[in-house]
Amino acid sequence: MTAPSESARKIVIVGGVAGGMSAAARARRLDEQAEIIVLEQGDYVSFANCGLPYHLSGEITRREALLLHTPATLAASLNLDVRTGNRVTAIDRGAQEVVVQTADGTHRLGYDALVLAPGAVPVRPPITGLDHPAVHTLRTVPDVDALRDTVAGLLSGRPTDAPAPHAVVVGAGFIGLEAVEALVARGLVVHLVELADHVLPPLDPELAPLLADELAAHGVDLHLSVSAQAVTPVDPSGPVADQSEASDVGAVTVTLSDGTALTADLVIVNVGVRPASALAREAGLDLGPTGAITVDGDQRTSDWRIWAVGDAVEVTHAVTGATGPVPLAGPANRQGRRAADSICGRRTTPQASVLGTAIVRVFDLTAATTGANQATLQRAGIAHEVMHLHAGHHAGYFPGAESVHLVASFAPDGTLLGAQAVGRAGVDKRIDVLATAIRAGMTADDLAELELAYAPPYGSAKDVVNMLGFVAQNVLDGTMPQWQAWDVDKAMATTLVLDVRSRSEYDAGHLEGALNIPHLELRERLDEVRTAAGGREISVHCASGVRSYLATRILLGEGFDARNLSGGWLTLEAVRSTQ
Amino acid sequence: MTAPSESARKIVIVGGVAGGMSAAARARRLDEQAEIIVLEQGDYVSFANCGLPYHLSGEITRREALLLHTPATLAASLNLDVRTGNRVTAIDRGAQEVVVQTADGTHRLGYDALVLAPGAVPVRPPITGLDHPAVHTLRTVPDVDALRDTVAGLLSGRPTDAPAPHAVVVGAGFIGLEAVEALVARGLVVHLVELADHVLPPLDPELAPLLADELAAHGVDLHLSVSAQAVTPVDPSGPVADQSEASDVGAVTVTLSDGTALTADLVIVNVGVRPASALAREAGLDLGPTGAITVDGDQRTSDWRIWAVGDAVEVTHAVTGATGPVPLAGPANRQGRRAADSICGRRTTPQASVLGTAIVRVFDLTAATTGANQATLQRAGIAHEVMHLHAGHHAGYFPGAESVHLVASFAPDGTLLGAQAVGRAGVDKRIDVLATAIRAGMTADDLAELELAYAPPYGSAKDVVNMLGFVAQNVLDGTMPQWQAWDVDKAMATTLVLDVRSRSEYDAGHLEGALNIPHLELRERLDEVRTAAGGREISVHCASGVRSYLATRILLGEGFDARNLSGGWLTLEAVRSTQ
Repeated sequence: MTAPSESARKIVIVGGVAGGMSAAARARRLDEQAEIIVLEQGDYVSFANCGLPYHLSGEITRREALLLHTPATLAASLNLDVRTGNRVTAIDRGAQEVVVQTADGTHRLGYDALVLAPGAVPVRPPITGLDHPAVHTLRTVPDVDALRDTVAGLLSGRPTDAPAPHAVVVGAGFIGLEAVEALVARGLVVHLVELADHVLPPLDPELAPLLADELAAHGVDLHLSVSAQAVTPVDPSGPVADQSEASDVGAVTVTLSDGTALTADLVIVNVGVRPASALAREAGLDLGPTGAITVDGDQRTSDWRIWAVGDAVEVTHAVTGATGPVPLAGPANRQGRRAADSICGRRTTPQASVLGTAIVRVFDLTAATTGANQATLQRAGIAHEVMHLHAGHHAGYFPGAESVHLVASFAPDGTLLGAQAVGRAGVDKRIDVLATAIRAGMTADDLAELELAYAPPYGSAKDVVNMLGFVAQNVLDGTMPQWQAWDVDKAMATTLVLDVRSRSEYDAGHLEGALNIPHLELRERLDEVRTAAGGREISVHCASGVRSYLATRILLGEGFDARNLSGGWLTLEAVRSTQ
Repeated sequence: MTAPSESARKIVIVGGVAGGMSAAARARRLDEQAEIIVLEQGDYVSFANCGLPYHLSGEITRREALLLHTPATLAASLNLDVRTGNRVTAIDRGAQEVVVQTADGTHRLGYDALVLAPGAVPVRPPITGLDHPAVHTLRTVPDVDALRDTVAGLLSGRPTDAPAPHAVVVGAGFIGLEAVEALVARGLVVHLVELADHVLPPLDPELAPLLADELAAHGVDLHLSVSAQAVTPVDPSGPVADQSEASDVGAVTVTLSDGTALTADLVIVNVGVRPASALAREAGLDLGPTGAITVDGDQRTSDWRIWAVGDAVEVTHAVTGATGPVPLAGPANRQGRRAADSICGRRTTPQASVLGTAIVRVFDLTAATTGANQATLQRAGIAHEVMHLHAGHHAGYFPGAESVHLVASFAPDGTLLGAQAVGRAGVDKRIDVLATAIRAGMTADDLAELELAYAPPYGSAKDVVNMLGFVAQNVLDGTMPQWQAWDVDKAMATTLVLDVRSRSEYDAGHLEGALNIPHLELRERLDEVRTAAGGREISVHCASGVRSYLATRILLGEGFDARNLSGGWLTLEAVRSTQ
């Protein structure tokens, strides 16, 4: 190993997973002479956080697959000095030293440049009995080890006719949903508890029912708008074993705020994280209003010798301008790279804002989001128009086309602000394209003109993204006035609701008082519309919004005051199911 | 049907497939009162051109699936007057009339606005015997009907042990490759003949060998850098039946320019198309240098009452600024929409340039391209640096990761100019993101910062697109000087080639005279490198470019003059296979 020269800079990095390890690796690539020390309080560095649920499920069979690097491999390939079990308890900024606690005691370590990559800590919800050994979280390799042991214990030696073990998952966010999927894959009966009124709270509510249906189809018992209040042993007199005999911890009862009592052999709690900024705070570094570490475009903190990256830093949302931590692997990795560039004197890119692009697989469905959702836009007071679209992921005439259910918000000037999608295929592609479009500041006009790869197995000549652009153009320039499903009561009370679906679709379910004229008959039956409307506005709808768009244009062309239901009956049903 | 009012504008559209039908439909949606007449010389309108090969293969089972609309359905839903078998033979611009030929004779039809959507005609290559009934093309519904009849005839009543029928496909472009796939799916032995030195000529040559290997793995016999010269009956004395008894047309011999004689029961010729601009030319409309119809941003021709859309119009390439026709369905559809907007007095977007994004499935592989390829950039004299990347389509620790083989060109200032990819999964997504990025004028820095949806089944925390940005940043800012596979002879002659792969990889094949030091041993063996280099530059390579990047950085950090092989051994092998 090359000994560092006298003048070599000494870079100390606190935290050895995504952001910290990206900083360390990039720093080495930029400076072969630097002394680079990575201090990790846990036993593992550079592990695949995002893969943990898939190891629990068994889809990732080999535990070693999660351990992307070890201190030994990092020493060999990048000449890094990686020290696990090293917890930094304090930063002495004056002396440029950190205080490190190990199993052997405490020592001080000097630095020229310090990178803080402490990550986040799980939020501990106010649930009594949370220390019961049946209660787990899913953030680290030891977490997944414990969960796998527990599940294995619950499943081993069971008679084939024994009832399946039960699990309660508290929190239906990204990791919670992945945990549910994993436990179902292992054969457990799963109850999912979520405080919000829909699963995957960052998703707009009109898409969430698709996920709820998919969960129900896989036997998951969903409890929305309730909190877990207590975890109590079923047999309070029984001994509480330690976690090494996980299968013997005994069943617990999880009591919900609505009085429901769920019996479970296993509980996973994942209700979010908060930035692990205590070390930075105690060192007097500036924190933002949300408690995350303030950094500049170089990831530099208020101390010019200290950089910070990852879940613990304050970032700016690209759309709303709001600041706060965003616990996502992609930004963390890029921040680490940027910090290393800065430390090594490289140009860095301007301060990167964050879109919050995220995705989750829920059985056969995919749900993904980028940019600002409706709730965020409302909170930020940003004017926006919401478009709903249900379009095939590839040409409809090619076998296997699946619907992409898309919701997107546009500013009045046409700028795309956010998009979300759920579907069985092609969701990740559309969200990635739209994430790129938001980053580029693209408008509805730009989306309409995007030239995406089209052959029947992959897309359509007018791709979902182009269609979204067309719809937004039409809404924003007044070609297609629209109404929203959440205004259905008002539409029913004050306008004529015109349902242009077929008679059989109408018979299978319709709005009370709606006039049914299938869209192909509309031109011949305008007099009926005129009579029924009696001068009122006409609220048109079909199943997805396409036929009703044609009908709306006919009516507008004939002088009626008409508007089209965004997303049609599909979106209306979803909205009503959450009300 | 609503009768057009006195003042209704009369819109006549020549050509009823992609662009023409988009114009007609949009015009109706914008103007309920207009009289809209679509004149189509063939028997079908609005059919799915791009689906034809998949009906030949049987993947699209129902012929009706290809017929998206009929004159009757278009009358019912959009009040369009669609007339098939109506060929426009002349435009009388002074009288504002077109001359229409039908089975019943010739008549004149007036217009207020005329839209030309004549499409393209197949290029007829200089092959003698091209009129033999065994020779087909694949552009229209009658074409695919004839091909299906022919294939069915060849396959019916054959003894199970009879040799498979043989087909020759001339032209290995997008449709040619789809035809090959279809014929193989039907059980034919297929010979593929291509004049260029690689399959899919628009693809950069270093990606084409992946397609050639895939074709070979499916039994396709590939003939590159040769032309077909003649089609002759095997039994010249035999009767040449008419096409209605396709299976009885008899075998033919296809003679190639290298003397090869291929016997075939069926020949498909698809060597490209040219704009069907004769009608426009004869009417005195301006044509561009390539013979396509000149239009402005509203799709308006040099006659302000005439618009033109689709394969027959001149478009501007977004990257090179070159003009010419681009026969793609997506742009055609959007041009039709734009023409209707203009006719109906709507704002239109500025002139749309074209990226030429295209994609093709070749058995289990996907190949896609967007923006300018290397040949186009060279012809246009545009300075560019080429990056090669082989990266997993999702996290490597998640089962099923497939390599995306990516080639991209960047301007010296970092602007992305073009990208191409081949792989078994995730290719369409990356090309769509990169098409969006090119359209937005994004740079390597922008790609590095793109926030794409990451969960293990979908991507990586550092997605292929981010990695491309990182690589391009490193090359363009001098962090990673690179050398190209096509300069291998020079590298071997004038530099030290350092192969940092493992010994077993080296033993399985290496460059003559290369020094092998596995990258993990490099720091300890720098003296060997110094001795072997003797002051020469060092040309480093590994398998894909990752380990050699680390090695290059070590060498640069130690004062050597080193550069990394773009795309590594994988790209080198591909380039050498085409030389």
